[in-house]
Amino acid sequence: MNVTDLILKKRDGSALAEAEITSLIEGYTAGRIPDYQIAAFCMAVFHRGMSADETLCLTRAMLHSGSVLDFSSLAGAKLDKHSTGGVGDKTSLVIAPLVAAAGAYVPMISGRGLGFSGGTLDKLESIPGFDVNLPLERFRDVLEKVGCAMIGQTDEIAPADRKLYALRDVTATVESIPLICASIMSKKLAEGLDGLVLDVKTGAGAFMPTLEQASDLAQSLVDIGNGLGTQTTALITDMNQPLGKAVGNALEVEEAIETLKGSGPQDLTVLCEKLSSRMLSLVPSAEPGDARARIAEALGSGRALEKFAHMVKAQGGNPRVIDDPKLLPQANLREVIRSSAEGFVTGVNAKTLGWASMALGAGRQTVESRIDPSVGILLNKKIGDRVEKNEPLCTVHYNQAARFGPVRQPLNDAFVIASDRVEPPSLIKRLVE
Amino acid sequence: MNVTDLILKKRDGSALAEAEITSLIEGYTAGRIPDYQIAAFCMAVFHRGMSADETLCLTRAMLHSGSVLDFSSLAGAKLDKHSTGGVGDKTSLVIAPLVAAAGAYVPMISGRGLGFSGGTLDKLESIPGFDVNLPLERFRDVLEKVGCAMIGQTDEIAPADRKLYALRDVTATVESIPLICASIMSKKLAEGLDGLVLDVKTGAGAFMPTLEQASDLAQSLVDIGNGLGTQTTALITDMNQPLGKAVGNALEVEEAIETLKGSGPQDLTVLCEKLSSRMLSLVPSAEPGDARARIAEALGSGRALEKFAHMVKAQGGNPRVIDDPKLLPQANLREVIRSSAEGFVTGVNAKTLGWASMALGAGRQTVESRIDPSVGILLNKKIGDRVEKNEPLCTVHYNQAARFGPVRQPLNDAFVIASDRVEPPSLIKRLVE
Repeated sequence: MNVTDLILKKRDGSALAEAEITSLIEGYTAGRIPDYQIAAFCMAVFHRGMSADETLCLTRAMLHSGSVLDFSSLAGAKLDKHSTGGVGDKTSLVIAPLVAAAGAYVPMISGRGLGFSGGTLDKLESIPGFDVNLPLERFRDVLEKVGCAMIGQTDEIAPADRKLYALRDVTATVESIPLICASIMSKKLAEGLDGLVLDVKTGAGAFMPTLEQASDLAQSLVDIGNGLGTQTTALITDMNQPLGKAVGNALEVEEAIETLKGSGPQDLTVLCEKLSSRMLSLVPSAEPGDARARIAEALGSGRALEKFAHMVKAQGGNPRVIDDPKLLPQANLREVIRSSAEGFVTGVNAKTLGWASMALGAGRQTVESRIDPSVGILLNKKIGDRVEKNEPLCTVHYNQAARFGPVRQPLNDAFVIASDRVEPPSLIKRLVE
Repeated sequence: MNVTDLILKKRDGSALAEAEITSLIEGYTAGRIPDYQIAAFCMAVFHRGMSADETLCLTRAMLHSGSVLDFSSLAGAKLDKHSTGGVGDKTSLVIAPLVAAAGAYVPMISGRGLGFSGGTLDKLESIPGFDVNLPLERFRDVLEKVGCAMIGQTDEIAPADRKLYALRDVTATVESIPLICASIMSKKLAEGLDGLVLDVKTGAGAFMPTLEQASDLAQSLVDIGNGLGTQTTALITDMNQPLGKAVGNALEVEEAIETLKGSGPQDLTVLCEKLSSRMLSLVPSAEPGDARARIAEALGSGRALEKFAHMVKAQGGNPRVIDDPKLLPQANLREVIRSSAEGFVTGVNAKTLGWASMALGAGRQTVESRIDPSVGILLNKKIGDRVEKNEPLCTVHYNQAARFGPVRQPLNDAFVIASDRVEPPSLIKRLVE
């Protein structure tokens, strides 16, 4: 099969056959097809799109470019959740132990922060000693013993995606729905899951701002999952403002622990419960009670918090952070951003908060950047809250004075204050299955 | 300047600034920007196009990626012609000596065959000893002494184009008007010309089948030439059927020689005269007589044929081929394709003839293929001709029986016979300036 002819076929808007897509991915992974041909192919896909069938074939080829984990010897459902990325989204840290406590296995392979979005791995690494780079045998051990385990992508998992993602990143071909879907799903389905719930964010702080766009992405992801034999549904959830009150790695871990203790922010708690019970309900269970009740019990009983402690310990982390969050990295400096007006908060720009947190050191400016786990922002107000003049809007945690200056005004402007109260945005917009 | 941002800008349909285009081309030529980023960029250009300004900037950047020849010390106009490629188009072999005989200099840098189109260099190399790989100093010597010289692209001329063209060829990004224009014009303008005539082919056997498409391409080429300071015009000419009667390297050289002797096919002779006089008329001249008269004189007097002989000799070729064409490579086998019906020829599929000639060995199937200079096809009939049943339509010259079988039926089908006579297509469709 001539690679140039396949690029041309996609360039001119035709659909590729399964064997054609497979040969491209196999050839690229094996190094037989050079980067420049795949770069041109990705740009053609950006402009021409891919049919549902093509996207499924692409995902399957990328999935089978590496190992597909097999946890069938573990008695119980293997479930996971994936979010398309937002600001303040620490749900994975809550959901993995919560669903494990409710009787399923959660073999979670996560990613790092990207642009203004935080990453689960970066958050976990703010726990002293926590190792996200377990080899697959250790991952399986922790999963078997604890019920959940959280690691980063390994060399064995979807190598085609790792190569392709690095290429897309430097060829302006990231923002293509079929390429995004195949990237996400090839990694997730490699976990050998029975069920997968996708949390597709929508709103000003999401990659997909409109509900329509988010629904299209969700439907495409769901169709791939189900098409490849994993029960998959998606919730479209709000990302008009940050989720919870903490943005930044250690700050988010602390908030996740609070949530597992039952005292987390209401929006975060509700979303974790909804996503978790949706996960459980994907597969039939021998456990008594419906999914919602099982999740409520796992959280209320403190067993989810225990699971989290077990996992932290099993992965080399210091579980004492759970009782004493001051053991997490702490920033030296604090500054409060105060409201210059009184009224009601009608908007909190999630993107601005994400970028500001990154600028403080919580995210990477370049691939080589080191993350400062202690810095970030705590929100004092969210949409719908009453605010008086000079009342705190948010508190900035930082270590270098030079990094605070540039974020002060943007953070101030991120809060929109008006005289009439608005309702907080509804958290769950739509279910896609 | 971040390369990914420039790719993204073009991907999303914005025009790039001159400095941005220059930095891309300079960086690519110097090896600082990798193939994969330029491949993605070319595919974005394919889908989004380029404005006239952008195309001009691209051409200028590619032109200045290498040497621009300077023949200003030679007293006389420096003129050239470029054709967009067709079947049986051996006009360059006639025009270069013809225009030189009329008093101008023709420093012609040509290309090789591409797909079903023949290439001037391949044709010249069928003359025993003819060297198309002269270094630039020798090129200048021949030009100065003879008035015309014909070589292939050298390392010094538009290196950005050589690199870019090789990349486009394997990334399905050849068929983009701005990229085509910049490629053609960066090489031609490097010849240090005063005037350039473009022969843009249109019709079933051309890259641009419709007159509209051909006119757009011609206008873009003409605008670039004039924009960069070289007097440029274009003729849109017919490529519904092959030009002249010979298709194949040595066969075309023989026909070019016949034309220089005044006994060539009428269509080829007329086109060579028109293009040549158009070239002369681009610049003011001290020579007496109008351009048409000067060309007629140069041809009729035999001085053009003499120039051709001088050039062949100066470039190491055997000038005796001019008096004795049997010294050109001869195929061992001949087969006549005969008409199965009587009537009038209403179509001769140029593409089929081009592909058939390539399949016989006259062109390259891959970059490594060796060309057989002796093979090809001589047309016995052209559009408008009366044909009896069993009368010859064309004669196939070949060396390997296995190569004749596959072309027999396609060649037969390439001739459309109908009961009503049609006029031969008009040769010159339009002038673009």
